[in-house]
Order: sequence, then structure tokens, then C-alpha cells
Amino acid sequence: MKSALSRLHSADIAETMVSLTDEERETLFQLLDDRTAAEVLDGVDSETQAGLLDDLELSEIAALLNAMPLDEAADLLGQLEEKERLSVLQIMKQETADKIRQLMKHKDDSAGGIMTPEIFSVYPEKTAEEVIDKLRHASLADEIISIYVVNEQGRLLGMVPLRKLITAPKDQPVGKLMLTDVVTVQADMDQEEAARYALKYDLLAIPVVDTDGRLVGRITMDDVMEVMEEEASQDMLRLAGTTEQTLETRSVLSTARLRIPWLLVCLLGCTLSAIVLEHFGATLAEAVALAFFIPAIMAMGGNSGIQTSTTVVRGLATGTVKKDQLYGLLLREIRVALVIGMVCGLLASIPAYWLTGMWLMGLIVGVSLACAMIVAVTGGVLWPMLGHSLGIDPAVAAGPFITTTNDITGLLIYFFIASTLLRLWN
Amino acid sequence: MKSALSRLHSADIAETMVSLTDEERETLFQLLDDRTAAEVLDGVDSETQAGLLDDLELSEIAALLNAMPLDEAADLLGQLEEKERLSVLQIMKQETADKIRQLMKHKDDSAGGIMTPEIFSVYPEKTAEEVIDKLRHASLADEIISIYVVNEQGRLLGMVPLRKLITAPKDQPVGKLMLTDVVTVQADMDQEEAARYALKYDLLAIPVVDTDGRLVGRITMDDVMEVMEEEASQDMLRLAGTTEQTLETRSVLSTARLRIPWLLVCLLGCTLSAIVLEHFGATLAEAVALAFFIPAIMAMGGNSGIQTSTTVVRGLATGTVKKDQLYGLLLREIRVALVIGMVCGLLASIPAYWLTGMWLMGLIVGVSLACAMIVAVTGGVLWPMLGHSLGIDPAVAAGPFITTTNDITGLLIYFFIASTLLRLWN
Repeated sequence: MKSALSRLHSADIAETMVSLTDEERETLFQLLDDRTAAEVLDGVDSETQAGLLDDLELSEIAALLNAMPLDEAADLLGQLEEKERLSVLQIMKQETADKIRQLMKHKDDSAGGIMTPEIFSVYPEKTAEEVIDKLRHASLADEIISIYVVNEQGRLLGMVPLRKLITAPKDQPVGKLMLTDVVTVQADMDQEEAARYALKYDLLAIPVVDTDGRLVGRITMDDVMEVMEEEASQDMLRLAGTTEQTLETRSVLSTARLRIPWLLVCLLGCTLSAIVLEHFGATLAEAVALAFFIPAIMAMGGNSGIQTSTTVVRGLATGTVKKDQLYGLLLREIRVALVIGMVCGLLASIPAYWLTGMWLMGLIVGVSLACAMIVAVTGGVLWPMLGHSLGIDPAVAAGPFITTTNDITGLLIYFFIASTLLRLWN
Repeated sequence: MKSALSRLHSADIAETMVSLTDEERETLFQLLDDRTAAEVLDGVDSETQAGLLDDLELSEIAALLNAMPLDEAADLLGQLEEKERLSVLQIMKQETADKIRQLMKHKDDSAGGIMTPEIFSVYPEKTAEEVIDKLRHASLADEIISIYVVNEQGRLLGMVPLRKLITAPKDQPVGKLMLTDVVTVQADMDQEEAARYALKYDLLAIPVVDTDGRLVGRITMDDVMEVMEEEASQDMLRLAGTTEQTLETRSVLSTARLRIPWLLVCLLGCTLSAIVLEHFGATLAEAVALAFFIPAIMAMGGNSGIQTSTTVVRGLATGTVKKDQLYGLLLREIRVALVIGMVCGLLASIPAYWLTGMWLMGLIVGVSLACAMIVAVTGGVLWPMLGHSLGIDPAVAAGPFITTTNDITGLLIYFFIASTLLRLWN
């Protein structure tokens, strides 16, 4: 069994883990050696992770953490309760524990929080041969792509791609080989911004420096990928009125708990909509046909709003939309809204006339629909952009807010126009 | 001016490009040397790209393409019209043109379509020293992380990380140094699947082989990242009823054109909703208060459906949801729906009673809301999962479909329950 397991890649074992029962999972986990167990632990979702850790002795956790890359060990420790965390750190190798404590000072979602402090750095006077010799004895978990050159204060001076080092004359000092035009990120920079940097400049690894320019770690592309994936999930699920944790949970009650808050906000909005309609109860009683097109006003307003807000939220995330473009974007979107509002308003007036036989009904529905869509699209730009400026996640500012307010304003517009026109004509 | 430009990173120039007028953009572009111009061209969105290419002579395009990595050159060529493309390939360096023609045989969204054919491969008998010497003379655009070892038929035997090569004894044949347990992808594999592989196994580069196991190229992590970003944008915007092209276009009319199709589908759905309501016109006229809660039925059904479908779509994309889990997932989601449906139904009956003063209204709204939510959540699992099984993008199957059908079924449920209960009690 053990030897069969050793032939599997840890990522495959992690994938299998998820479909096992709790008991099977623990049995399988016990069979793994520390290194593989550590990798598997890193590969499963946080719920499975917590389950597996729960059954381990503190000393077993410490052994696993010793076998992990430092950044992953720090992440895992961050999930334990403080008391447990301190005890585990006490049992671990002194040196590793110190490095992890250092690493845990950085915020989870900062560049420092996702970097690994294991960097291979040398002084500029070292020759290519000396550096290669040092490489031979270095023990690093991650692959090395570049050598970093630092001065005595630890400040980053430049970097030498491994290939350049290999092919250089042996006695060449790395100070002469290095590229000095290095893109770096600050340790306290937001992880998403750091990831965008790496993506923008097509880097496989990006060095992290502290406020004094001292090299403190590096972020590799696989960490960057994880951040981008996480942020995309976050945006998508927040726009849908839930959170990214919903991907990691399998329990019915926790899933319900993650979805109910936004549904309650929505229910409150619906109550306001009902109050609006009740206010126009006399108009409704007079022309019941008005009710037939409540779905159209709501759905068309809602959908055009979501189209816009999703475009803005994704644009802000990928960098095609910039913070300072609010006015330009708003102007453009209002023009887009005029086009789509008029097309849809015109088309909607046809079934409105056809179903009720009243041309006035066609006019009311067409005009209201166009207005509701224009308002919805405007909100679709405004809320996420304002959220972004105020430091609120645009996806949070967009999702719940837009749908609920659009429903209410759409209905207000519809019944205001309807009651006015009906009064004028009758 | 030229020298100031040469100090800027091409990614920064590309970013600036977007905010310039067409004329400024062309002037700036003319000032760049071929290599930088090629990089800038690769960094801007496809609309800007097309604009810049339009103003160039075929010979200028050929010069730019000669200066580009092959995979990017192939992508760019793919955007030209066939006649232009063939002419440009004729003017280009013979060798490069042949490689690009070869590359363009792969589908755009396959592993072959995003790989670069520039690989550094050696036979297993070569010694570390010979390989290093060969490296010295190789001209490759991308960074090298590993050396690939192939046999005489070009089949991949293994790979040697650069660091292992550096630190090995000079006379060691690479056949003895190589790792043989290499994860590869097939050239015809879907790009997203290939990217997921790289992500799953934490690879910085993944070798691409043809159906005979011959090494034909490699995909680096920066290409993988672009794919993941593209796929995330695609899912998000398709769920919102538009397409990923909307991020790249700045024209009002093209934006409107990208949004209108789904709005028209929605309008059709709204017409069906209106027909349903017209059918229940007598019930509505009898109890106008029923209209007050049309928004609640629609919004709560719609939102719980979107929460579910977005979770499923994202889960399928990130691999937390698997194709064969349909029944398990469906069962779990129905239980989630029972919980949230009952909570929300119960809560919704309060404003329904309060606004109308009729306890029967509270009952009708509560029960209908719960039923509409359960149906919506079920659809939220069913449509994307079925779409996925049938090879339809789950995001497409989810987005437009769910919202529209939920509105109609929700209203049918509401008025069916309302007319039945009203008849029973009166």
C-alpha cells in the first residue's frame, strides 16, 4: 500500500481525498510520509484540511510543518487556534519556527503573506564559479530561476538569470553579470496588486523588498496563479451574492448560512418593492394590465445593470478599467444605455400593445423600460467605481446593491410614468 | 524622445497606449524599435492591436513578427485576413515563417495553440558540460528553467532542472541526471485543461507532446496565467449575459451589440411572463395585492438560482465540482434549498400579512416563495451540470437560461398556488 502510494503524485492523492469518507481519509493520510502528507495537506480545501489536522497530535503537526515550504507552513499555522499555534511553534525546529514567526507578521493578503522567504542571494563580488558552488550546497524547496544580488545591508542590487550564470566565464563577478532593471514589489503591497505586476511584466518570479529596499522574499508564479484564481472566485461569487467559502464547504447548513445573508437583504428590498406597489394600489386596480409587465421592468433593468457592473468589476480586476476613468466610462455607458434602452423599449412596447390592446400601455411600458434600463446601467458603473475609490470591494458594492436598488427604482419609474400618463389620457 | 522611450518597460508603454488618441498612438508606435514594438503590440488589447496593424505596411508587420516569440507571432497573424496573412508569411524569414505555419495548425484554444515551439532539448548521452556549452549558443526568447531530454525520434524521456545541471559533475550524461516522472500535456488538449494541469502540479513550465509522445513545445506559467484569466473573465461575463469581448471594446455601438442579444432573449422571457400573468388576469383583478409580491417571487427565485449556478460554474472551472457528482450535488443543493426556502418563505409571509392584512396572503406568498426558490436552486445545479456533460459552456447554460426560466416558473407557481388557495377559501 505504502509503495503504491509513493508512486502517486501528491496532487493526485489530494484530489482523491475529497471524495473519501472522513474515516478513509484519515487512514490514507496516516499512511503518507511527512513530505507527501505536507504536500497533500497543502492541496486539499480548507474544510478537509481542518478535518485532517483535528485528528493529529501537536507533535505530528509540527513534523508536517517542518517538511513544508515556509510560506505554506505559515498559512496552515494561521488556521490553528492561537494556543495550539504557539505550542506547535515551540515543538518545531527552532530555526524554522523563527522564520515562520517572521513570516506570520505579514498580512495574509499582502505580498509578504504569499511570498516565500527562501531566497538565494549573493554579494556582487562573488564569481560565477563561487556562486555555482554555493548553489550546489543550498537546500531550497522551490525551483531556482534567478540568483539575487544584494549588498551588505541586504538591499537588492540586481539579479542574474540562472542561464546567464551558467554560461558566464567562471571568474566573472556576478555584479558584472546582473541585470539591474529589476521589477520588485513591497512586502505590504496587496497580494492582488503584486500578482498583477508579475502578470504585467511576464515574470516567473518577483522579488519582494521591505520599505528599506532589503530583499525579504520572492513570489513565484504558482503563488501568483493561486492569488488570481482566488480573486476571480471571490469576485464571481460576491457578485452572485455569496462568498468564495461556498466552494470549500460541503455541509448543507454552512452552505445555507453563506447564502442566507444576501437573500435577507434581497427580501428587505422586495418588501420595499411591495410597499411601492401597494402605494400605487389604486393605479393597479384601475389597470390590472400594468402588473403583467412588472417582470419585464425588473428583469430588463436587473440584467442590463448586471451586464454593466460585471464588466466594470472584471475590468477593474484585470486592469482594463482604471480608477480615474469614472467620468469617461460613465459617459460611454450612458450612451450604451441609450442605445440598448431605446431598442429594448421599442421592442417591449409591441407585446405590451398586443397583450392589452391599448396603445397607451405600449407607450408606458416602452418608455418605462428604457428609463429603468438607463438608470440600471448608470448604477452598474457608479456603484463598483465608487466602492473601488472608497476601498470597498467593487464586487460587494456591485452585487447585492445594484439588483435590489434597480428593482425598486425600476418599479417607481414604471408606476410614476403609468399613473401620470393614465391621468393625462383619462 | 527615443532614448527616453528605451528606458521604459514595454508593458508600461502598452498600458499608456490605451489612453492615447489614435494619432498619438501611431506616432508613439512609429518611434519604437522592432523588438519593443513587438512587445507593446502583444501587451495591448485586440482593438488597439488591430488599429495599429491597420496603419502598417506588410513589410513592417513582417519585421515585427520576426522580432516576436513564435507563439505570439502566430496569435497576431491569426487576427489578420487570410490574404494579408499569406503575404506577410511570404515576406518573413523563411525559417520563422515555417515554424509559425506549423504552429498555426493547432487550434487557438488548445495546448498547441498557446505553447511556444522554442524548446531546448538534448539527447541523453550528452554530458552536463556539453549541454552547458550548447546553452551558451542557444538563442531563445523565453527564460529556460529546465532542459528537456529526448531520444532520436524526438520522444520526451525526461527533464533536468537547470539548477541540477549546473551543480552536476561535468562529465555526467544528462540521461543520468534527468527526472523521468514528467507531467506532460497533449497538443490537442483544451487550453484550460492544460492550464489546470500546470496549476495542479505547481509547475513553472509544462512540456507539450504530440500523439506519438514527441516533444513539440512547452507552455510557460505566464501563458497559463493568461489562459486562466481569460477563462475567468469568460465565465463571469457569460454568466452576466454578455461576452469577454466587452472588456476589449471601447466603441458604444460594439458594446451595445455585445449586450443586446441576451437582453432580447430576456425580453422574450418577459413576454412569456406577461402572458402567464395575463392568463391569471381574473385572479389578479380579484386580489390586486397579489401583484405586490411579484417582485419578491422573481427576485428571490432569481437570486437563489444565481447563487447556486455561479457556485457550480466556478466549481467546475476550478475543479472543486466534478462532472460525475451531479446526483450528490443535486441532493445536497435540494437540502440547502429546503433550508433557505423555508427560512425565506417564513420571513416573507410577515410583510405579506402586514401589507395586506390577510393571513391567507401570508400563506400564499410564503409557500410560493419557498417553492420558487427550491425550483430555482435545482435549476441552478441542473443546467450548468447538463451543459458541461453535453460540451456546452456551463456559464452559457447557466446565465441566460436560469434567470429567464426561473422568472416564468416562479410566476406560474405563485399564481397556481394563489388561485387554488383563493378558490378553496372563498
